[in-house]
Amino acid sequence: MPPVHPEIIAPDPTAVEHNVRAALAEDIGSGDITAALIAADSLATGRVITREDGVLCGQPWVDAVFAQLDSTVRIEWHRRDGQSISAGDTLFTFRGPARSLLTGERCALNFLQLLSGTATTCQRYASLVADTHVRLLDTRKTIPGLRLAQKYAVRAGGCHNHRIGLFDAFLIKENHIAACGGIGAAVATARQQAPGKPVEVEVENFAELEQALAAGCDRVMLDNFSLQQTADAVALAAGRVELEASGNVTEDTLLAIARTGVDFISIGALTKDCRALDLSMRLD
Amino acid sequence: MPPVHPEIIAPDPTAVEHNVRAALAEDIGSGDITAALIAADSLATGRVITREDGVLCGQPWVDAVFAQLDSTVRIEWHRRDGQSISAGDTLFTFRGPARSLLTGERCALNFLQLLSGTATTCQRYASLVADTHVRLLDTRKTIPGLRLAQKYAVRAGGCHNHRIGLFDAFLIKENHIAACGGIGAAVATARQQAPGKPVEVEVENFAELEQALAAGCDRVMLDNFSLQQTADAVALAAGRVELEASGNVTEDTLLAIARTGVDFISIGALTKDCRALDLSMRLD
Amino acid sequence: MPPVHPEIIAPDPTAVEHNVRAALAEDIGSGDITAALIAADSLATGRVITREDGVLCGQPWVDAVFAQLDSTVRIEWHRRDGQSISAGDTLFTFRGPARSLLTGERCALNFLQLLSGTATTCQRYASLVADTHVRLLDTRKTIPGLRLAQKYAVRAGGCHNHRIGLFDAFLIKENHIAACGGIGAAVATARQQAPGKPVEVEVENFAELEQALAAGCDRVMLDNFSLQQTADAVALAAGRVELEASGNVTEDTLLAIARTGVDFISIGALTKDCRALDLSMRLD
Amino acid sequence: MPPVHPEIIAPDPTAVEHNVRAALAEDIGSGDITAALIAADSLATGRVITREDGVLCGQPWVDAVFAQLDSTVRIEWHRRDGQSISAGDTLFTFRGPARSLLTGERCALNFLQLLSGTATTCQRYASLVADTHVRLLDTRKTIPGLRLAQKYAVRAGGCHNHRIGLFDAFLIKENHIAACGGIGAAVATARQQAPGKPVEVEVENFAELEQALAAGCDRVMLDNFSLQQTADAVALAAGRVELEASGNVTEDTLLAIARTGVDFISIGALTKDCRALDLSMRLD
Amino acid sequence: MPPVHPEIIAPDPTAVEHNVRAALAEDIGSGDITAALIAADSLATGRVITREDGVLCGQPWVDAVFAQLDSTVRIEWHRRDGQSISAGDTLFTFRGPARSLLTGERCALNFLQLLSGTATTCQRYASLVADTHVRLLDTRKTIPGLRLAQKYAVRAGGCHNHRIGLFDAFLIKENHIAACGGIGAAVATARQQAPGKPVEVEVENFAELEQALAAGCDRVMLDNFSLQQTADAVALAAGRVELEASGNVTEDTLLAIARTGVDFISIGALTKDCRALDLSMRLD
Amino acid sequence: MPPVHPEIIAPDPTAVEHNVRAALAEDIGSGDITAALIAADSLATGRVITREDGVLCGQPWVDAVFAQLDSTVRIEWHRRDGQSISAGDTLFTFRGPARSLLTGERCALNFLQLLSGTATTCQRYASLVADTHVRLLDTRKTIPGLRLAQKYAVRAGGCHNHRIGLFDAFLIKENHIAACGGIGAAVATARQQAPGKPVEVEVENFAELEQALAAGCDRVMLDNFSLQQTADAVALAAGRVELEASGNVTEDTLLAIARTGVDFISIGALTKDCRALDLSMRLD
Repeated sequence: MPPVHPEIIAPDPTAVEHNVRAALAEDIGSGDITAALIAADSLATGRVITREDGVLCGQPWVDAVFAQLDSTVRIEWHRRDGQSISAGDTLFTFRGPARSLLTGERCALNFLQLLSGTATTCQRYASLVADTHVRLLDTRKTIPGLRLAQKYAVRAGGCHNHRIGLFDAFLIKENHIAACGGIGAAVATARQQAPGKPVEVEVENFAELEQALAAGCDRVMLDNFSLQQTADAVALAAGRVELEASGNVTEDTLLAIARTGVDFISIGALTKDCRALDLSMRLD
Repeated sequence: MPPVHPEIIAPDPTAVEHNVRAALAEDIGSGDITAALIAADSLATGRVITREDGVLCGQPWVDAVFAQLDSTVRIEWHRRDGQSISAGDTLFTFRGPARSLLTGERCALNFLQLLSGTATTCQRYASLVADTHVRLLDTRKTIPGLRLAQKYAVRAGGCHNHRIGLFDAFLIKENHIAACGGIGAAVATARQQAPGKPVEVEVENFAELEQALAAGCDRVMLDNFSLQQTADAVALAAGRVELEASGNVTEDTLLAIARTGVDFISIGALTKDCRALDLSMRLD
Repeated sequence: MPPVHPEIIAPDPTAVEHNVRAALAEDIGSGDITAALIAADSLATGRVITREDGVLCGQPWVDAVFAQLDSTVRIEWHRRDGQSISAGDTLFTFRGPARSLLTGERCALNFLQLLSGTATTCQRYASLVADTHVRLLDTRKTIPGLRLAQKYAVRAGGCHNHRIGLFDAFLIKENHIAACGGIGAAVATARQQAPGKPVEVEVENFAELEQALAAGCDRVMLDNFSLQQTADAVALAAGRVELEASGNVTEDTLLAIARTGVDFISIGALTKDCRALDLSMRLD
Repeated sequence: MPPVHPEIIAPDPTAVEHNVRAALAEDIGSGDITAALIAADSLATGRVITREDGVLCGQPWVDAVFAQLDSTVRIEWHRRDGQSISAGDTLFTFRGPARSLLTGERCALNFLQLLSGTATTCQRYASLVADTHVRLLDTRKTIPGLRLAQKYAVRAGGCHNHRIGLFDAFLIKENHIAACGGIGAAVATARQQAPGKPVEVEVENFAELEQALAAGCDRVMLDNFSLQQTADAVALAAGRVELEASGNVTEDTLLAIARTGVDFISIGALTKDCRALDLSMRLD
Repeated sequence: MPPVHPEIIAPDPTAVEHNVRAALAEDIGSGDITAALIAADSLATGRVITREDGVLCGQPWVDAVFAQLDSTVRIEWHRRDGQSISAGDTLFTFRGPARSLLTGERCALNFLQLLSGTATTCQRYASLVADTHVRLLDTRKTIPGLRLAQKYAVRAGGCHNHRIGLFDAFLIKENHIAACGGIGAAVATARQQAPGKPVEVEVENFAELEQALAAGCDRVMLDNFSLQQTADAVALAAGRVELEASGNVTEDTLLAIARTGVDFISIGALTKDCRALDLSMRLD
Repeated sequence: MPPVHPEIIAPDPTAVEHNVRAALAEDIGSGDITAALIAADSLATGRVITREDGVLCGQPWVDAVFAQLDSTVRIEWHRRDGQSISAGDTLFTFRGPARSLLTGERCALNFLQLLSGTATTCQRYASLVADTHVRLLDTRKTIPGLRLAQKYAVRAGGCHNHRIGLFDAFLIKENHIAACGGIGAAVATARQQAPGKPVEVEVENFAELEQALAAGCDRVMLDNFSLQQTADAVALAAGRVELEASGNVTEDTLLAIARTGVDFISIGALTKDCRALDLSMRLD
C-alpha cells in the first residue's frame, strides 16, 4: 500500500505572488476611498465563513493578499486546502487594522470563492466515480492567467492534472498525424525529438486506435467515442496502453463511462466553467 | 433621443497585452513539442465557429494572442464584439504558419469562450428586463486578474459597470457608518475627502434609508430587501436618489424586482460565475 | 458636523512598491561604488531635517525604499504625512548599516522632496481660499508614472482629487459633443453607457451652459470664463449643478474666482509643475 | 575643431517603453469612457502647438504612446528634440482614429511638456554662461522613475550629465573619507576597487582641496564655496584637476561663478524642480 | 521510418522577448554614449561571421534584439539554427542605422555566442555516440534565467531535453524514497498524485534497481554506476524500463558508457559550463 | 597605504531579486511534483559543501532563493563571498521544511556554482600576475541577464570591472573615429557631449596611438598588439595615459603581457565562458 500523502503540491510562489499583485492593483488603484472614512488606528477582528458546503481551496492566495497589503494582519486558518467544509464553518479568523481588512476582503474572497468553487466541482465529479478505478483529469481549457491556480484547485478537489501546457507532454491530433504521414511516424518522431515526454494520441475510430497501439504510445485519447465504442476500445487495448475518454462528458454520463474500464476521463467543465462558492467575511 | 453609439469602451491596451502575455507564457513554456512535428514552413487556413448561440466578446485578446506569437498570422473577423451570434456562425477566419495557429489556438479560445460566455450571460439577464427601465450592474466579485476584461464583457452583453474598484466610487457600508457616527456624517466626510466621486450608501432597513435620503448621497443600495420592501423604498425615495437592489437576485426574481421601479439591480453572478461558450477552431 | 478624519487615503501598496523598485534600479544599477569604501559592518544613525517650511508627504515611499534595500534599517517618524513642518524640524530619524543609509538616501529624499513640494504648493493654494467654500482640484496634468503618488500629495496638502484618469468620470468636451450631436445627447448617452460615473461637461459660453443645465449633468466646467462670466454662471446655475472654474488660474486670481461662488477650481499647476522641498539628511 | 554632432544620445528603448506603459495604464485603466461617445470609425487629424517659447524634448515618448495605443495613428514631426521652438509653432501633426487621439493626448503631452520644460530650463541656464567655458551639470536629484528621461532632456537643453547613478562614478564625501582615514586613502582605494571609474571628491575647505589635489582624483567638488573661495580654488588647482562648483547656484549667481574659471557647475534645480511647457493639442 | 523533421521546437516568444529586454536594459542603460558620436542618419551594412567551426544557435534572440532596438534594421540569415558552420562563414548580413547596429551588436552576439557554444558542445558529445542508440540528455544544471534558451540550444546541437523543471516529471531520489517508506510506495504515490507525468527513480545499487523494476517506473537513473555495473543493469532490466546513466560522464568515458546499452546518458556539463563560440561582427 | 577594504560592492537588490524570481519560475512552474511525496511538516537540516577548491561567490542570490521560496528556512554561512574555499569545506548550513529545501536546492546551487566558478577563474588569472602592477578587467561579453551578477563575481575573484555597459564610459573604435573625422575630433566631441565619462580609444597601430595620446583621452586600448608592440607602446605613452592590452589573452601569455608594463589587461574569457564549481548539497 502506498503511504497516504494527501498533501497538495504547492504552486510556484512567484505565480501566487504575481496573481495577487495583479488582483490588488486592479481593485485598489489610487486607494480605497471608502476605507479612508475609518480611523487609521482602528483595529478589528473577524472571520470568513462559508455559506454552503464544499471543498476549501486558496490559502496561499489569501495569505499573499494580506501579506502584500499590510504585514501586521494576522490570519489563523481553521480548515486546510483540500478539506471538506460545511455551511456555517469558520474558514479562517483574522485581526489587524480595520482599513486593511476591509480593503483586502474582496480580493481575498475572489480567490477563495473561485478556487474553492473549482475544488468543490471536482470533488462532486470525483465522488460520482469513487467506486471505480478511473481518474478524472482537467484540460487546457482554463481561465487565462490562472492555470497554475486552477490546476492546484483540481488537485485539492481530488481530481488529477493532465499536462500543464504545450511543453510537458505530446497530444498528437489529426493535423500532426497528417503532417507526419501517419500515427506510427508521428509517435516515432515524438520519441526522438523529446524523449521522456509522455506521448498521447487522439483517435477518432478503431483503425486509428489500432495504429496507436502498434505505435507504442503511452496513452490514447478516445475522441467522442460512444459508450459501447469505449467499452470495445478497452477490450481491444487489453491493458497495452492507457485509455482516456474525452468529449461530451457530463455528470449524468460520467459513471457509465467510468464503468467501461477506461483509465482516465478528461473534463473541460472542471476549469472552463466556474461557480464561486458562497463565502462571507464578518467583522466582529 | 440620444444617438445610438453601440460601441463598447475599449480597455487599456496594456491590460490586454499583459493578460495575453501571462496566458501564453503559462501555456507554451519551453515550447509546443507537438507542433514541432509539423514542418516550420507549413501554412494553413481555417476558421473559428461557435457551436451555440450567444454574444461575441474578446476580439482584442484574440488579436493580441496571434500578434505576440507570430506577426505573420492574418485574422479576419466576421462578427464584432457585442454582436449576437448563432450556432454554426463563423466568428473569424485566419491564415498563417500551421504551427503558430495550433500553438495559439487554445489560448485564444480560452479568452474568447470566457468573455463571450460572460457577455452571453449578461445579455440573457438584460433581455429579461428589456421592457423596463432598470439597468443591470456587475460587482467587484470578479476573476482575479481579469476585472477589466470582464467589465468589458459586461458592456458587450448590454449590462453596465458598477464601480471598477475601491478607488472610483464610495460604497459606504455598516462598518464605515459606525466609524463615522452615522450615515449623515459618513456622507459629509466622503464628499469632503473626495469630491466628485459618486457616494452610494448600503442600507438594511427603512430607518437607514431615511438617513441616507437626508444625507444627500447619490445612490442607495437596498441590501436584501424583499420585493414589497423594495417597492416601498421606491415610493419613499420618490426619485430623490437612485436606488439599487442587491442580494439574492436570480433569473427567476429579476423581472419582479425590476418592476418595483428601482433604477439598478446588481448581480454578482454576472462575473463571479462563468460558463464558457462552446467554440471550435477548424483548420481547412 | 461630520467627524474629523484627517487621514489621507493610502495608495495601492503595489504602486508604491513599483515606484520604489524603479527608482532604486535606476540609481543603484551595478552597485554603489562609493559606499563600498565604507566597511560593511559599520553602523550609523542620523536624521532627515527640512530646511524650509512646508507640508510633509511621502512616508510610504521612504519606508519602502529602505524596506527593499535593507530590512535591518530602522526608521522613526517624528512628523506625519499631511502635517505642517517648519525649517529645522526633524522629519525622521534612522539607524542601520552606514552603507545602506548612504545608498538609499538620495532615492528616499527624491520621493520626499517631490511629494512634500507638491503638498506644500497645494496647502499654499488652499490657504488662500480657506475662508470660502470652494474646493481646489488637481487635473490629469501629472508626472508620468507618479499620478497616484501626486494625487496622494494633493490630498495631503488639503486640496482634492479630480478624476484619477479616463476611466472613472466623464469629462465631455467639444469633440465629444459634436460627435453626439449636442450636449443633451452626449449626457444621455453617457448615463446610459456607464451609469454611476459622474458626468461633467465643459462649456465655453452661456448657450452651452444652459444646454448642460438642461441635460442634467453632475458638474459643469467653465472653460476660461472671465470673473464676471463666472459670477453670472453661478447665478444662472442657481445650485442646480456643481460648477468648476478652469483655465488660467493663478495665485493672484484664485481668491476672486472663489468668491464668485463656484464650487470647484481646478489647477493644473498643482501637479504639472513641481518644486522640491529643501531637505537634508545628516548622519550623526 | 571637433565636428558638430548636435545629436542627443537616445535612451534605452526599453526604458522609454516602460515609462509609457506605466503612464498609459494609470491614465486609461478600465477604458476611456468619454472617448466611447465617439464612433469607433471616426477619423481625425490635428496638431500639437506650443503656446510659449522653449526647447522641444520628448519625441521618443510621444511616439511610443501612440505606438502602444493604436498602431494606425500616424505622426509627423515638424521640429526635432533639442531644437528651439517659438509660441505658435506646430510641433507635430497627426491623423488617426479620433478616439485613440483623444485617449492618448494627455499622456503624450504630459511627457512632452515635462521634458520640454526641463530642456527649456537647461537652455536658459546654459545661455547665461554661453560665453564662458563652463559646462553645466545635472545631479541625482531627479523625479523617481524618470532619471533617464530627464538626463536626456538635460542633454537636449545643452547642459551635460553628471553621473547617471551610484554605479558609474565615485563621489567621495565626508562619511567615506572618515571611513577610509583620509582623502588620499579613499582615492587610492577607489582606484583599486573600480579602475576606470571617474573619482570625484567633495571638499569643504582648502585643506581638503589640497589633499584631494595630492591624491590625484579626477575632479573636485567645491561644496558651498564663496565666489572668492571658488576663484582661489581655481588658482590653487592650476589645471591639475577638474573643478566643479556646487551648492546654492541660482540664475543670478551663475555667471559670476562661471567667471571664476571652474570647469563645471552642478545645479539640482535642473531636474528636481520642473515647470511644464504650455502645449496644446488641437483637432482640425 | 519516421519522417525527418529536423526542426527545433521554438521556445515561448515571451521568454525570448523577456530575455532580450533584460539584456538590452543592462547594457544600454541611459544610452550608448559612444554611438552618439555617429550621425543619426548614418546607415551601414555588415555581416556577422564565425571565427571557428560549430553549430549555429540563437536566431530568435538576435532577431528580437534588433526588433526591440530599432524596427528599421533588416537582417538576412545565411545559416539556420542547428546547422553546422565553419570558420569564415557568414551567419547573417544586416543593414540599418549605424548607431543601432553598433548599439545592439554586443547584446546580439552575447546570445549567439553563448547558445551556439552550447549547441556546439552538444554536437561534439552527440557525434561521439552517433553510431550507438543512446540519446544524450541535459539536466537542470543551467544558467539561471536562460533555461528555456539553453534547452533550445541542446536540441539544436542534436542532444535531447530531460525534464524542463520540477513540474513536468518525477525524479525520485533518496530523500523521497525514505519519506514514502520505499521505492514501490513512492512510485505508487507519484502515479496517483500526478497521473501522466513520467516517473523516474534514481538508484545507487542493484537492490534498489530491482525495487524500481518491480515498482513499474518509466525510467531508472543509475547514479554513479561503474561501466561493469551499468552493463549488468542493462542485462538485469532486459528492456522492461528505460535506463539512464548519470554521474562523472566525460568525453573520454562517453562512448564506453553508451556501448553498455543504456538508453540515455545525462550530462550536466552540456549546460552548466559554457564556452562562447568566437564570432565577429564587421561593418562594411 | 590605503586601508584594506576587501568588501565587494553589493549589487542592486532589485537585480538580485529579479534574477532569482526568473530562475525560480522557470524551475518550479506548476509545482515540484516530487517534493510533494514528502510530508509538508517534515523538517530537515543539511549543508552545502564544495567538492573542489575555488573562491566563493553568490551569497545574495542563495539568500534570495530561500527568502522568496519559504521565509522559515534558516541559512548560516560558514564562508564569505570572495573567500578562498577548499574541497570539502562546508559553505553554509541550513534548516527548514524538507520540501522547500529540496525544491530550492538546484536553483540556489545554479547561482552559486556559476558565480563561484567565475570568481575562481578570475582569481586564477589574478594570481598569475600578482607580482605585477597590472589590473585585470572584464568585458561586455557576459551572459545575457546576469551582467551585474557576473561583474560582482569578477570583483569577488580579485579582478576589476571595465565599464558596466554602453552608458558609463566611452570606448571609441574604428567606426566612431571615421564618423568624427579622426581620433582628436572624436575625443573632443565625447568630452563635450558627456563630460565626466571616461574616454577610452581603441587603436590598432602606433599612428593611432600617437593621435590618441595627442587627443588627451583617459585610456588607450591596444587592440591585438604583439608583446613587443605592447612594450613599445608603454614606452611611447610614458605614463601620459593608461594603457589596456586587449585581444587573444590566454593564461599562457598573461604574465608576459603584464610585464610589458601596461596598466590593464581585459579578458573576455572571464565572463563569456563559465565553468561551474562542483558543489553538493547534503541533507543530514
